[in-house]
Amino acid sequence: MAATVSPLAPARFPDMPAVAGVRLATAAAGIRYAGRTDVLLALLDPGTSVAGVLTRSKCPSAPVDWCRARLKAGKARALVVNSGNANAFTGRNGREATKLTADIAAKAIGCKPGDIFLASTGVIGEPLKAAAFDGVMDGLVAGALPGRWQDAARAIMTTDTFPKGATATARLGKAEVTICGIAKGAGMIAPDMATMLSFVFTDAPIAPAILQSLLARGVTDTFNAVTIDGDTSTSDTLLAFATGAAAARGAQRIARASDPRLAPFRAAFERVLADLAEQVARDGEGARKLVEITVEGATSKTSARRIAMSIANSPLVKTAIAGEDANWGRVVMAVGKAGEPADRDRLSIWFNGIRVAHRGLRDPAYDEAKVSAAMKQPVIALKVALGLGRSRDRVLTCDLTKEYVAINGDYRS
Amino acid sequence: MAATVSPLAPARFPDMPAVAGVRLATAAAGIRYAGRTDVLLALLDPGTSVAGVLTRSKCPSAPVDWCRARLKAGKARALVVNSGNANAFTGRNGREATKLTADIAAKAIGCKPGDIFLASTGVIGEPLKAAAFDGVMDGLVAGALPGRWQDAARAIMTTDTFPKGATATARLGKAEVTICGIAKGAGMIAPDMATMLSFVFTDAPIAPAILQSLLARGVTDTFNAVTIDGDTSTSDTLLAFATGAAAARGAQRIARASDPRLAPFRAAFERVLADLAEQVARDGEGARKLVEITVEGATSKTSARRIAMSIANSPLVKTAIAGEDANWGRVVMAVGKAGEPADRDRLSIWFNGIRVAHRGLRDPAYDEAKVSAAMKQPVIALKVALGLGRSRDRVLTCDLTKEYVAINGDYRS
Repeated sequence: MAATVSPLAPARFPDMPAVAGVRLATAAAGIRYAGRTDVLLALLDPGTSVAGVLTRSKCPSAPVDWCRARLKAGKARALVVNSGNANAFTGRNGREATKLTADIAAKAIGCKPGDIFLASTGVIGEPLKAAAFDGVMDGLVAGALPGRWQDAARAIMTTDTFPKGATATARLGKAEVTICGIAKGAGMIAPDMATMLSFVFTDAPIAPAILQSLLARGVTDTFNAVTIDGDTSTSDTLLAFATGAAAARGAQRIARASDPRLAPFRAAFERVLADLAEQVARDGEGARKLVEITVEGATSKTSARRIAMSIANSPLVKTAIAGEDANWGRVVMAVGKAGEPADRDRLSIWFNGIRVAHRGLRDPAYDEAKVSAAMKQPVIALKVALGLGRSRDRVLTCDLTKEYVAINGDYRS
Repeated sequence: MAATVSPLAPARFPDMPAVAGVRLATAAAGIRYAGRTDVLLALLDPGTSVAGVLTRSKCPSAPVDWCRARLKAGKARALVVNSGNANAFTGRNGREATKLTADIAAKAIGCKPGDIFLASTGVIGEPLKAAAFDGVMDGLVAGALPGRWQDAARAIMTTDTFPKGATATARLGKAEVTICGIAKGAGMIAPDMATMLSFVFTDAPIAPAILQSLLARGVTDTFNAVTIDGDTSTSDTLLAFATGAAAARGAQRIARASDPRLAPFRAAFERVLADLAEQVARDGEGARKLVEITVEGATSKTSARRIAMSIANSPLVKTAIAGEDANWGRVVMAVGKAGEPADRDRLSIWFNGIRVAHRGLRDPAYDEAKVSAAMKQPVIALKVALGLGRSRDRVLTCDLTKEYVAINGDYRS
């Protein structure tokens, strides 16, 4: 873990209420490092629905394979997450480790192994010694308590510099329901392939198929619109759990995803996803600037997304922002290489509201001193107007600093 | 320009003979920096054929547009290259600057402006003051001499740390013909979009259409198989000039690209392209390691290329190599994110001949000390065997160091 907290971190971890039907516990199982919590158990009441979005990597981790198979049934009794070892590229040992972890948890809880969801994050290619969970699982189950979100968020961190949590409430029928989520991010994060590790819990009574559609829609402009380095983990996992406990207080069971009564819940759910995704960008490895890239005037949203991602993943754009240099020439380069419709002579570019290029030329009012001052801000809003159509999109990233290289140049050692 | 020469630089600039029909001159026109040569003139005898491969950027520079239009005629009398300013994203001023440069050169030489080829490299978005060429052009024409390759290579450098040249000879009919090329690279370099700036000259009598087909085929496994940072310049330009002067000594004029008598020339031509492309990788910004990535056992060459490029452009792989860490887990990640057919449990990975992963698992004979020693070498051969098919491909890249961030964090200032 990095020694210093990202300068872009929120002032503090949010106040997050308990979610009825969810109890949390953490332990130090010594998976990789001694003396830090590295296991999270989330105990879920019987009847909890589960949905998930998993990495599109062609070489997924063993826990990703495990979750993909278990999602079909749509029901969960517990989530077990470990940090320190990703259990990826571990072959038969990896599959056996997931099975053993689920068996240990199921035995301690008194449920079926198939009701256990798993996630692992950390080093790839090292065998995971799942027997280590045996020594801590009974204690985790016995000690699980509602509302321990910050401990939970801390237990799943790897190179993250701060724990990430977000919460929201929404009316659903006669009751107010609660949504709480945690996430871990830092490096190896890119879009269009699901996400990093994130777990969202609610007491709303939502059937698995509806929860799945909420999640699939929700990631598009949140987790899938964040990139740190264009690299996609073998382990990206976003799971949502709905215990249904609020039904007892009058929360409505919704049968169709299109039911308008679901709208407030959907909005609150997406706010939580967006908040967590932004925190992941704010904790990009070595990040000193949060960069919000907006592309407008595109011929389609897909085209705007591709251009925004081309800018967000350009090492030359990211290093320029690290250097507080409004190098819009590199933005032109990144627009040009995206392969999407673009007309050099219609392009306009803004940094933090200051137009630096207008219709293919340096802005006539360009004032280097004014732009330089704007580039010293911790949040940089980079806007590109293509002048071709009416579609827009927005993605988040961070700058590329020497600290990124330092963190990743000796992560394993 | 960087103060220190890349540790991967060749020991010295090669001995390069004159090419009959080509004379070279350089000057300091003060385009951006005072006191360094920043203009190259290559004077070409009447009847010289020209072919070119240009950036696929949707926002190309004005000189790229100029060359694309002039290539149709296939004839050239001169090449004018400047460093310091890319004349990209400069609107009408940019188009006028190319026209003015060509006019100035054509007047001094006594030819048509359409016979002048242009390339510019340096900062994007700053107006190029082409009038500066007026003061140096007559002197360049008067002083042009055969064989001044090293001066020429030096004049087109930007953040390059050493001048790049390569040469070869081949038999063509009754005569030996000569091929000499120069290049500049460093950053903003990615494949599948033509190349950085490179100019190749020969005295062979090759018609424009045949020269074009030689060039288009030649770049595939040379310049298009090199990536520094995945960023593609608005200015990438590779031009080949064939003066035909060797015809007087008995070199054969070839009418078809498929003529077997062209084979020795084609091989020599591709050797020059490959040599220049490797030098570009050896001078990647901040590079301390040359990385050769070979992917074999793929279902097609295209698939192998995509996987190799996914590895080559992964910041996590590149920073690991900078840290001399054989982090094959990140190689698995990069294979997985490429979106191409891959089977985790068939993957094997080698670093400098040492197998570190075998069929989806850490190699049973894995010896950390031995692998660590191998990672200290300046050249890293990273091989991935997919175990799916019979196709292979190879690309070159370099590591990602703190120096890359430093160079690009304040390039403009």
